Amino acid sequence: MKIGIVGGTGDIGEGIAMRLAPLYDIIVGSRDEVRAKESCTCSIAALKNRGTSCRSFTGATNQDAICCADIVILAVPFRNVITTLETLSCFEDKIVISPVNPMEKRDHFMFVPPEDGSAALMIRRLLPKEARICSAFNTIAANKWKALNEELSYSVPVCGDDEEAKRMVMGIVNSVSKLQGFDAGPLAASSMVEALTPLLLNIARYNKMRDVGIQFM
Amino acid sequence: MKIGIVGGTGDIGEGIAMRLAPLYDIIVGSRDEVRAKESCTCSIAALKNRGTSCRSFTGATNQDAICCADIVILAVPFRNVITTLETLSCFEDKIVISPVNPMEKRDHFMFVPPEDGSAALMIRRLLPKEARICSAFNTIAANKWKALNEELSYSVPVCGDDEEAKRMVMGIVNSVSKLQGFDAGPLAASSMVEALTPLLLNIARYNKMRDVGIQFM
Repeated sequence: MKIGIVGGTGDIGEGIAMRLAPLYDIIVGSRDEVRAKESCTCSIAALKNRGTSCRSFTGATNQDAICCADIVILAVPFRNVITTLETLSCFEDKIVISPVNPMEKRDHFMFVPPEDGSAALMIRRLLPKEARICSAFNTIAANKWKALNEELSYSVPVCGDDEEAKRMVMGIVNSVSKLQGFDAGPLAASSMVEALTPLLLNIARYNKMRDVGIQFM
Repeated sequence: MKIGIVGGTGDIGEGIAMRLAPLYDIIVGSRDEVRAKESCTCSIAALKNRGTSCRSFTGATNQDAICCADIVILAVPFRNVITTLETLSCFEDKIVISPVNPMEKRDHFMFVPPEDGSAALMIRRLLPKEARICSAFNTIAANKWKALNEELSYSVPVCGDDEEAKRMVMGIVNSVSKLQGFDAGPLAASSMVEALTPLLLNIARYNKMRDVGIQFM
């Protein structure tokens, strides 16, 4: 299975790529192809240092990362989603994973969704209707993705309207470290998942913690 | 410390009362004083059967439960909050805990806040400005409150604008079973806490689980 990461050289994208590379063929996408290839070289070296071998792990433009992939992860900050998607095509029939959280930092962090109700619903509106959108990985902090020595013992709620796509995404979630995927319902319910991230950032901030995650129990 | 529970004979209220009764003086409030007293008799018997002694544990009208208490818990479904608060007074200077979650069951559960942004913010608007509102206990299921044989190993986010009141509420949270209180910021951040409950109900529904709770980690 080939996974393309749009924004794959960003904080979250780079960590996701390293966690998935031992298990899947990864195409790291970036606006800047050279930067994508450099990021891959560094990540492969870091994995090799740990004695971890990876499958195919290549850098490309965001567009090529989408075209070559079965599954696309949109590792893009909410503020850049619209401008990024405007320049990209070839999403038809792809499974598209949104880990995007629309939020603002005021005195505290607030969930500030677009008019669609959530980032995932906005992305569904912006992409061709044949794209199979799921939200997942919303609450895993960039630092945790990159801390390869640490297990990720978190619950991951997954939303989506295409049941087959959602099952595949939950399979990917469950294949990474100790992450455990949970079906959180249709994409219409994704706002409550996206609202978790600013809540966790507030919990970290007001309780002097770092990179707080959740477990359902 | 005297804790009055408005709606203390309801599903959530009854369970909260039994969990708190060994530790605090409890006044169970109800629209129907006789029902409140009957509920207390049953709860005291249930606790005695388990060899648990309680402090003062009495039934009263909702109004008397408020007047006699230092801390008031509004164990009322969201749909009844406005009509209930319209008939009640004497909230000045009380610490008022809202475990209320505004939500609707459609095909799935959805967080549907009032115009204020959250139930806790609406309650702040409805009560005298001297009342010290905190949100807490939002995500603990009624069944779990009542299952006295089970430890409650959950995280409890607490929001509020009065730091002293919030610390006292977190102290109460931490005194119950294995609950652990976390400062989740000002009352303006309570919407993200209230949105957790419909999310947890969706997780339970779509993964064939019961009474799902959370831990921050």
